[in-house]
Amino acid sequence: MTLSLDQFNLVYNSLSLAVAAMGAAFVYFLLARQSVHEKYRLAVTISALVVLVAFYHYMRIFDSWNHAFVYDPATMSYTSGVPGTLPFNEGYRYVDWLITVPLLLTELVLVLKLSKDVTKSLLTRLIIAAIAMIVLGYPGEVSPVTEKLFEFGPRGIWGILSTIPFLYILYVLFTELTKSLDRQPEAVKNRVFWLRIIVLATWGFYPIAYIVPMVISDPATAEVIRQVGYSLADILAKPAFGIVVVGIAMIKSEEEKAAA
Amino acid sequence: MTLSLDQFNLVYNSLSLAVAAMGAAFVYFLLARQSVHEKYRLAVTISALVVLVAFYHYMRIFDSWNHAFVYDPATMSYTSGVPGTLPFNEGYRYVDWLITVPLLLTELVLVLKLSKDVTKSLLTRLIIAAIAMIVLGYPGEVSPVTEKLFEFGPRGIWGILSTIPFLYILYVLFTELTKSLDRQPEAVKNRVFWLRIIVLATWGFYPIAYIVPMVISDPATAEVIRQVGYSLADILAKPAFGIVVVGIAMIKSEEEKAAA
Repeated sequence: MTLSLDQFNLVYNSLSLAVAAMGAAFVYFLLARQSVHEKYRLAVTISALVVLVAFYHYMRIFDSWNHAFVYDPATMSYTSGVPGTLPFNEGYRYVDWLITVPLLLTELVLVLKLSKDVTKSLLTRLIIAAIAMIVLGYPGEVSPVTEKLFEFGPRGIWGILSTIPFLYILYVLFTELTKSLDRQPEAVKNRVFWLRIIVLATWGFYPIAYIVPMVISDPATAEVIRQVGYSLADILAKPAFGIVVVGIAMIKSEEEKAAA
Repeated sequence: MTLSLDQFNLVYNSLSLAVAAMGAAFVYFLLARQSVHEKYRLAVTISALVVLVAFYHYMRIFDSWNHAFVYDPATMSYTSGVPGTLPFNEGYRYVDWLITVPLLLTELVLVLKLSKDVTKSLLTRLIIAAIAMIVLGYPGEVSPVTEKLFEFGPRGIWGILSTIPFLYILYVLFTELTKSLDRQPEAVKNRVFWLRIIVLATWGFYPIAYIVPMVISDPATAEVIRQVGYSLADILAKPAFGIVVVGIAMIKSEEEKAAA
């Protein structure tokens, strides 16, 4: 695959943006956790761990991207799959999600401080569904892109299997979780609304990125859209999501203080 | 040895998963130790040290794995043992275990806060047995795989010698430790049950990985099973084990608070 200098750099700079965003978010969450009531500290700690793990993976993805291409100054373009390059490792993203997606769902549930039974039941089901979603997506992701959309080769079939737990997660977040929100203050409800919008908007991008190589015939364009899209979605899904979680933890900490 | 791209990447991504898991666990244990009563802090500190040591070793193992193979873009495969490669250093794992296995047993005993005499007696015997287990396993691990199972060459004989202290450790954990648990609350007993299951399930994998090259004739498949298996076993045996230890420390800290 050959990318123009601009195409290569768009991905390169998006990956670097993600490294910077994850690293800065890690330090912010570490500091913010000291300002929240100890009841809500674990949720903020988990936000910090999520962006730390993502920081590590974006460092690796960035290196892998650079080793996957050779630059030709004559044509000002980058080429992969030729001697002197290594294959780009898409696996990092799946390893990252395997750790971070269950943790993101955990921080969302923990910061609400629902009853112990509800927390346990929500977490068990959400974590199992999250792991199923990612494990089922991976074989499809690494299958060669030989099929178009709706041809139902391995890429399509694994994709559909992986979508089932994804829909289940959305169902739990948008119906069951809503029932548990009755006793939360208005400001918290409002923020939970935004957390769910982030989940819908950013997680919703992942299936699109997965489908992109099946609908866009130019592999270079498809790859650029995928990599830039994944990176921006991750920045929303992890640091931005965590910032809203910290906001909820702050509001609820004020309440604790007022009640004490 | 030649590995397909998928085989190589499965090991590569498992090693990277272990790096990320150990690093995130280190930060979590450092933060969690602030939240437990000082009586239980040493056990959580040791959990942090275990995953820090393992983080370092997985960085090294990851690098060693990458330097042990050369990629050929034409056949999309990785080959070891050819000019330009270095031998893969299996020794890192043994050095890691030499430090981390005695520490894991120490954190398990310390978090229970048994009487001083019982603690001392358990620790002395468990640590000596752990060191014997690892030191006796290493010469067998580095012996060339020329024998099949039950042929009793050097690999088999060292393996058997190493199994004796392993069985002794299980004996101590499943009988003597049980006697000391009488006065522990139900929630703690329940967690100690899980700690022992983790020890049995994960440490039980190491002899299997040791035997794999003697029973699976395809060296590439055997190597992939070994490396992925070791990595997953280490993630359970160190971060997951440590999370249960933190759970015990939290429960016992609550008790201290209630009693005060």
